[in-house]
Amino acid sequence: MPGHEIVGRVTGVGAAVTCFKPGDQVGIGCMVDSCQQCDPCKHGLEQYCQAGHTLTYASHDRQDQRPTYGGYSEKIVASENFVLKVPDALDLAGAAPLLCAGITIWSPLRHWEADKGSKVAITGLGGLGHMGLKLAKALGAEVTLFTRSPSKAQEARRLGADHIVLSTDESQMVAAKGRFDLIIDTVPYVHDINPYLPTLKLSGTLVLVGNVGGLEPFLSTIPLILGRKSVAGSVIGGIAETQELLDFCGQHGITSDVEIIRIQDINAAYERLLKSDVMYRFVIDMASLKS
Amino acid sequence: MPGHEIVGRVTGVGAAVTCFKPGDQVGIGCMVDSCQQCDPCKHGLEQYCQAGHTLTYASHDRQDQRPTYGGYSEKIVASENFVLKVPDALDLAGAAPLLCAGITIWSPLRHWEADKGSKVAITGLGGLGHMGLKLAKALGAEVTLFTRSPSKAQEARRLGADHIVLSTDESQMVAAKGRFDLIIDTVPYVHDINPYLPTLKLSGTLVLVGNVGGLEPFLSTIPLILGRKSVAGSVIGGIAETQELLDFCGQHGITSDVEIIRIQDINAAYERLLKSDVMYRFVIDMASLKS
Repeated sequence: MPGHEIVGRVTGVGAAVTCFKPGDQVGIGCMVDSCQQCDPCKHGLEQYCQAGHTLTYASHDRQDQRPTYGGYSEKIVASENFVLKVPDALDLAGAAPLLCAGITIWSPLRHWEADKGSKVAITGLGGLGHMGLKLAKALGAEVTLFTRSPSKAQEARRLGADHIVLSTDESQMVAAKGRFDLIIDTVPYVHDINPYLPTLKLSGTLVLVGNVGGLEPFLSTIPLILGRKSVAGSVIGGIAETQELLDFCGQHGITSDVEIIRIQDINAAYERLLKSDVMYRFVIDMASLKS
Repeated sequence: MPGHEIVGRVTGVGAAVTCFKPGDQVGIGCMVDSCQQCDPCKHGLEQYCQAGHTLTYASHDRQDQRPTYGGYSEKIVASENFVLKVPDALDLAGAAPLLCAGITIWSPLRHWEADKGSKVAITGLGGLGHMGLKLAKALGAEVTLFTRSPSKAQEARRLGADHIVLSTDESQMVAAKGRFDLIIDTVPYVHDINPYLPTLKLSGTLVLVGNVGGLEPFLSTIPLILGRKSVAGSVIGGIAETQELLDFCGQHGITSDVEIIRIQDINAAYERLLKSDVMYRFVIDMASLKS
């Protein structure tokens, strides 16, 4: 629900539309527009549009300034530049979170060049984290989950983790010293990232995708300086990159693990979200609106 | 003085030495040894030796465990693997700080690929900072100095800066928004780096080389996430990389600006160092020891 992305089939296209036709299986992710003229937009990085992209939900349309209402609807009208083709092989409901959780993981995996031979760790096993395990594994990386919950080990292995490191167990953290090329930290609240930095290899990078705010407690520069390590951030991904992800998922049969709900059950789902009681994304079947 | 590097001429070589002969103009930097077997050592990154490198000063020799006394001496015996050739074209005294301040700047400039077309900023104008301006300029980058002192503008331009940004002037900081591919922050004490992050371009990197400790106040992740920016660190450089720097300096006629002192004046020089009263490095003429 947080991303408000929408998937479905094309019901009609404007005269100028060249890439889609009625019946196509498509999706719209977190963005419906951007300036299309700045340097990031020209390089397929609309998520970093210098003029600010238009979110699918809770932004204002660039043409008429009306609020955008996102995926809580039966139909949506959008520029074809922001419409993605969802491979026919993919289940539509399971593909929906690829447009938010999936691309949020895919973009840093690609930017920091995770592939065969890479050692990648994912911190946190939620909507983002479970996509991290699946995608890093499918790219050929050796994949580790950092978690505070021993009970998540079996589930993590099912999703693609080769190793589990309990971040609350100091001996496991010491044993993981110098192991990872890339850590993608999906934890969506303030937490101490200092314990993770020693587990990066020389010149490794820890990418924050969930914790928006202050890095508390103070980040120590010592592992950065003495190991040429980086702390970075990343947000969703560009349109071309999102299509690349969908095509990759089509080839590898990857979707998000979802629980489909009726729109009438949204309040109960919201209460469960607050308790992290979802594996791993809720998807609303909008057909339920008229049932 | 902080680096304890030493330059001079070879007076004798062991039977197994193949790269040097008596009379060669040479230097020894911050390291005299490393394990030579770990992955970083095998890749010419002895500064990140996993077993810990042996510093020229205040370490313990790997063979006999005796303390290393560094450059405060008339002679030094070292493995040829850690001896650098100083191009004949370079003044020896001015070349000495290249082995510490110079390589500390050179290594991140090369690792983060500064070259023609790059926009590089240097924060702080001391021993490291003045090498930053010279080296970034010689690599073809457009070079900016961040400083709190308007009085340093003329000097910065002499050293190679194309632009000066007063970091205490908010309007200048706003005007610099999104400008730099790379910022090398040489300030050697705790300071707030948050104001500099907006001046990085999308995917830009701020590299800390001076501030060893905690990043205070809290680092905000927002510019990292919303601009795919990185905060990184770096320490000196490897031996091959240091030779590359010396060769580059030989070709471009670059040395450090130094003030040569007699060993008898070291206490006065130390007092001046504490007041940042040196442009930009003291070099001790060890011949003064016997005068």
